[in-house]
Order: sequence, then structure tokens, then C-alpha cells
Amino acid sequence: MRKILLASLLGTLTLSPLTSYAQFAKSEDAINYRKGSFAVMGAHFSRIGAVVKGEKPYNKDEVIANAAIVNTMAALPWQAFGPGTEGGRSQPEIWKETDKFKAGADKMQKAVADLNTAAQSGNLESIKKAFAAAGQTCKACHDNYRKK
Amino acid sequence: MRKILLASLLGTLTLSPLTSYAQFAKSEDAINYRKGSFAVMGAHFSRIGAVVKGEKPYNKDEVIANAAIVNTMAALPWQAFGPGTEGGRSQPEIWKETDKFKAGADKMQKAVADLNTAAQSGNLESIKKAFAAAGQTCKACHDNYRKK
Repeated sequence: MRKILLASLLGTLTLSPLTSYAQFAKSEDAINYRKGSFAVMGAHFSRIGAVVKGEKPYNKDEVIANAAIVNTMAALPWQAFGPGTEGGRSQPEIWKETDKFKAGADKMQKAVADLNTAAQSGNLESIKKAFAAAGQTCKACHDNYRKK
Repeated sequence: MRKILLASLLGTLTLSPLTSYAQFAKSEDAINYRKGSFAVMGAHFSRIGAVVKGEKPYNKDEVIANAAIVNTMAALPWQAFGPGTEGGRSQPEIWKETDKFKAGADKMQKAVADLNTAAQSGNLESIKKAFAAAGQTCKACHDNYRKK
């Protein structure tokens, strides 16, 4: 019985990431995928940044569209950090501190979801706060895990 | 009066793409952005392909999730083909045959929207047909506009 429980628990815990990791035939595909998703996410995040910094006028619909794309992209890159996919701008620590890395990824996704909510509220002050908080979560991981 | 009408018409026709093009500070940023969005789109399109080819078992929710990402990504890369952003794997013809290129992009987006609808229907035969049709639109542009 204990064995069945353990097997079931392990299945629940590991099936989803394993399935995702297995989606990349080659390490290079995983690296391209995560680079790509970060590039798209960063571009749309920066567009909100330009509004927050006052470099571009605030347009509610544009911020909503950009925040929605950032939110969609924020869920994607993590599946491409599977075992054996070291490389690109990723520091090798990612594969040594997987719990810490995952915690950072989760924090970012939560902050980006908050930014998405703020965008929809149409309140520029809320957007500014949520943008700054999300930016901190990007920076935290980049400082630790991205090659300069 | 005619001048005002013309100015207004031109504004309507060109403001949106110009605004988007202007989002990229450097040509390199635009190239990275379009590479990134195509890479993510291609990865999720291939996952549906594996199901269509019978290499992976059909899971309705997974196909829905993949088709939704493909559909979101399909709208993105075009804004990154602005004037002066030649390079990467893009053939220079893109900037000479802009109408033809845009028609191909529109056709692809329509086919991908159909694939998204088919995914939600849960009918594997519909998914197979919509996948093949969408794949044709990818191939048409790659044959003409992507460097080998």
C-alpha cells in the first residue's frame, strides 16, 4: 500500500515536468526555446516599462495587450531547463539549485500575474507598482543565473 | 478637404504598424524578437504534429494548450519585419514583396485560428486536417522567404 501511495505521489510530482522536458529532441532546441520565450517576454515587458518611465504615453489597451503576452510567456521557459540542457546564457547553478531556481520562477510568474491584473484595472499607479515588483523578480534571477 | 481625408486615411492605415515597428530600438532587437516568436510557435506546433503523426498519444487538453500558444504567437512576429530590419534567416524579398508577404502572414494566422478551433472541438480528424492546412501556410512562406 505504501509503495502504491509513493508511486502515485511520485507520478503526480514528476509526470508533468518530465513530459515537458521530453518535448525537446535536442538540448539546442530547449536552449532556443527558452531564449525565444525570454526574448518575446522581455520585449513586451519593456514596452510597459517605457510607459511606466514616461517615455511613451499611457494607452490602457496597449498595456493590457503587452501584459497579457508577458503573462502567457512567463509560464513557458521553465520547461526548457530540463536535465542535460545546460548552455546558452544559463549559469550552471540552475541545475544545482533547482529548488531555488524554481522558487524564483514561481515568484516571477506570480508578480507577472499581478501586473496583468493591474493592467486590466487601468490604474497607472497600480501598473507602476506591479511593474517594479515584477522587474525585481526578473533581476533577482538574472543576477544569479544569467551569464553577463 | 481631400488633403485632410488623405492624411486621416494614411494615419489609419499606417499608424498601427509604424507604432509597432518603432517598438524595436535596434534592428537586432527586431530580429531576436521574430526569431524568438517563431521558435516558440514552432515548438508548440511540432508538439501537435507529433500527435497528428501518431508519435504521441492524443491528449485533448495538451493539444488545446499547444494550439492556444501557437495562436497567440502567430500574431507576433510580423511587427518585427519593419523597414531596416533585414537580416537573420529572412530573405531580402520580404522587404520587396511586402503585400505578398503580408498575405502569407494573414493566411497563416487564419489557418492557426482554425487549428485552435479544431483543438477545442476535441475531434482528432478535424485537428489533423487543420494541422495540415496550417503546416502548408508555414511551408509556403518558408520556401519563399526563409534562408535555407
